[in-house]
Amino acid sequence: MARIVLKFGGTSVGDVDRIKGVADRIERLVNEGNQVGVVVSAMAGVTNDLVKKTEAVAPLQDAAEYDTVVASGEQVTVGLLAMALEDRGIPARSWLGWQIPIHTDDAHGKARIQDVATENLEAALDRGEVLVVAGFQGMGPDGRITTLGRGGSDTSAVALAAAVQADRCDIYTDVDGVYTTDPRIVSGARKLERVTYEEMLEMASLGAKVLQTRSVGLAMNEGVRLQVLSSFEDVPGTLVCGEDEIVEQQQVSGVTYSRDEAKITLQKVADRPGVAASVFGPLADHHINVDMIVQNISEDGQSTDLTFTVGDADLDRAVQILQDQKNALGYAEIVPDRNVVKVSVLGVGMRSHAGIAQTMFRTLAEKGINVQVISTSEIAVSVLVGEDYTELALRALHHAYGLDSA
Amino acid sequence: MARIVLKFGGTSVGDVDRIKGVADRIERLVNEGNQVGVVVSAMAGVTNDLVKKTEAVAPLQDAAEYDTVVASGEQVTVGLLAMALEDRGIPARSWLGWQIPIHTDDAHGKARIQDVATENLEAALDRGEVLVVAGFQGMGPDGRITTLGRGGSDTSAVALAAAVQADRCDIYTDVDGVYTTDPRIVSGARKLERVTYEEMLEMASLGAKVLQTRSVGLAMNEGVRLQVLSSFEDVPGTLVCGEDEIVEQQQVSGVTYSRDEAKITLQKVADRPGVAASVFGPLADHHINVDMIVQNISEDGQSTDLTFTVGDADLDRAVQILQDQKNALGYAEIVPDRNVVKVSVLGVGMRSHAGIAQTMFRTLAEKGINVQVISTSEIAVSVLVGEDYTELALRALHHAYGLDSA
Repeated sequence: MARIVLKFGGTSVGDVDRIKGVADRIERLVNEGNQVGVVVSAMAGVTNDLVKKTEAVAPLQDAAEYDTVVASGEQVTVGLLAMALEDRGIPARSWLGWQIPIHTDDAHGKARIQDVATENLEAALDRGEVLVVAGFQGMGPDGRITTLGRGGSDTSAVALAAAVQADRCDIYTDVDGVYTTDPRIVSGARKLERVTYEEMLEMASLGAKVLQTRSVGLAMNEGVRLQVLSSFEDVPGTLVCGEDEIVEQQQVSGVTYSRDEAKITLQKVADRPGVAASVFGPLADHHINVDMIVQNISEDGQSTDLTFTVGDADLDRAVQILQDQKNALGYAEIVPDRNVVKVSVLGVGMRSHAGIAQTMFRTLAEKGINVQVISTSEIAVSVLVGEDYTELALRALHHAYGLDSA
Repeated sequence: MARIVLKFGGTSVGDVDRIKGVADRIERLVNEGNQVGVVVSAMAGVTNDLVKKTEAVAPLQDAAEYDTVVASGEQVTVGLLAMALEDRGIPARSWLGWQIPIHTDDAHGKARIQDVATENLEAALDRGEVLVVAGFQGMGPDGRITTLGRGGSDTSAVALAAAVQADRCDIYTDVDGVYTTDPRIVSGARKLERVTYEEMLEMASLGAKVLQTRSVGLAMNEGVRLQVLSSFEDVPGTLVCGEDEIVEQQQVSGVTYSRDEAKITLQKVADRPGVAASVFGPLADHHINVDMIVQNISEDGQSTDLTFTVGDADLDRAVQILQDQKNALGYAEIVPDRNVVKVSVLGVGMRSHAGIAQTMFRTLAEKGINVQVISTSEIAVSVLVGEDYTELALRALHHAYGLDSA
């Protein structure tokens, strides 16, 4: 007997038949003698519809009311799934965030879980009930409904698994695991049997959208064994686990990319101390994240070019802010560019293997791909290249690191 | 300055524009210096959609899960309306049943309100906030969501008005008041300026579907002044109030009808003590309400005919139960009849005026309408007639009691 937490996303509970399918899957686990907790999202499309209604009613949305509205989607799904289980004779009951309660901070729309109370949940498990838990939602300090941001149901599932000390947490989704790269672009992409928390975290933050970043961080901190599985095919998925559980570590585990990047170059910025602070200070004040930064070597000792990237959605605002400060910053020209992509290679094996970056640059050079900006972390190397080169770069790097399937 | 509770039904908040319209109406009341609480239903059609989903998922529905699902509709409306108010600069916040809390019993699907906690509500009113309260829902003794049954938002509004001692409770709906009879049938039907709680209660239980019966009973007990108004036209509605507030009381205030009736005749039942009990006992055991009853005078001293009415929806079950008991009851024949209608005249003036029933029977006789069964209460006389005579009977009675508009 094991204690298992499952999570099903919106597509997996997208209609009445799929909800019944989820109930079938749970029935099998219960009949095998397992204790089961299940976290569900809103039915596919529901959250988007609700968000549209809030936008139509009030351009300036009250964040607490927004949460009250959008959290209703998960409430419907838990009720329906608990019903479907009861109908099969499986004891079950729905749990909303405030009923458990799942305590969060008061950052409506992107709240963070602070604590999951276990008393009600343990009592229900002792009674032999399946826990049917609404994802994406919690209760703030003032007793109001909060939501955890897009993808928040992954975090709900990991938090539930940690709270009830589940043996594992299975995330059912519309992909069947974590791949070495995007299989829609690279036909030789392989599904990874296992991947470390650290790699998964880098993948999530570098653009692979399998799991919410925060859920992976929480799983790592709490030691929750995460599995990513397909809702629609009965095939093995990918286990996200600690480094010690992975016997033979590759140097590079995957190649990711993110098109959600834009580049800004400030030409002929004065080359003196404090310039970087005066450029990035105003952007930070406006909550614009700057990712990669490169400063060219000054040719004349007087001025230099400063290049950096921001999220695609922030580009126009960032340019406006910097134009407003043109006199203070004293640059000659501002050059924005949306046609860029960030390509990254990553793997915990990098820590012990030299030459990973070298291989990357050589491979790209051989294909005639110009590297515009470079950044590195402990387990990843990223480059910014022209967006047109996305597929070419991915295929070349995937091959160069020996990741192609046989 | 007054303290006012408003209630808007599903049609009145049926889309984003109508929700904005409701916000406009509240804005005017707030700008006039009033304290406002508003109770809203789910947007038109939403509750029916949710009910259909529950039926598709599980034929045997768990009532607590049913409530969890269907209560989500009101949650969306309160969030949207509170947002629309905030967007206009009017302080407001949404309140779900469990947040107030509105305590109910545990009869899921038809729960009764036991108590409305006032601490949160009074504090919010003191802060100058509009209370935006989800109708139809409360919280059971075990902390789960309950719903109050169809039309339950009327009861929510009256309970809120009683709890915060509102000066009045305005029920906005898709009709513009209470009429002397159904204006779709009798062109001379008049809107009543005022009607007593007792009359409104009789009207509701006799088939007029303006307000949920339970809400009228609660308003009577708590002395809440109820007003029924149109959401779509700015015209005076009908005030439901105590008898002392009505200066010149008519003998008859209205003529109602209900097609939701079916007649059963048991022919040649033994005419001895205890027969009625042995007929109606099994029906009561199966929760079938019997309304009107008439027993003919025995012709031979041995046997008699017993006629009574049940709800249309219960007819088949009632006939089945009585057929199963045929030997025990010893009747000759059972004759069911769906083609009947109950027509009633009512008014608190009946208490002090004789001859009301007399006028009714004479009027019907003059039109050649055969009265099959008669029943009376303190302020109403009802007759069962053939369904084909519905319109004829209503028009004749409306005219006979001088109710036609000039």
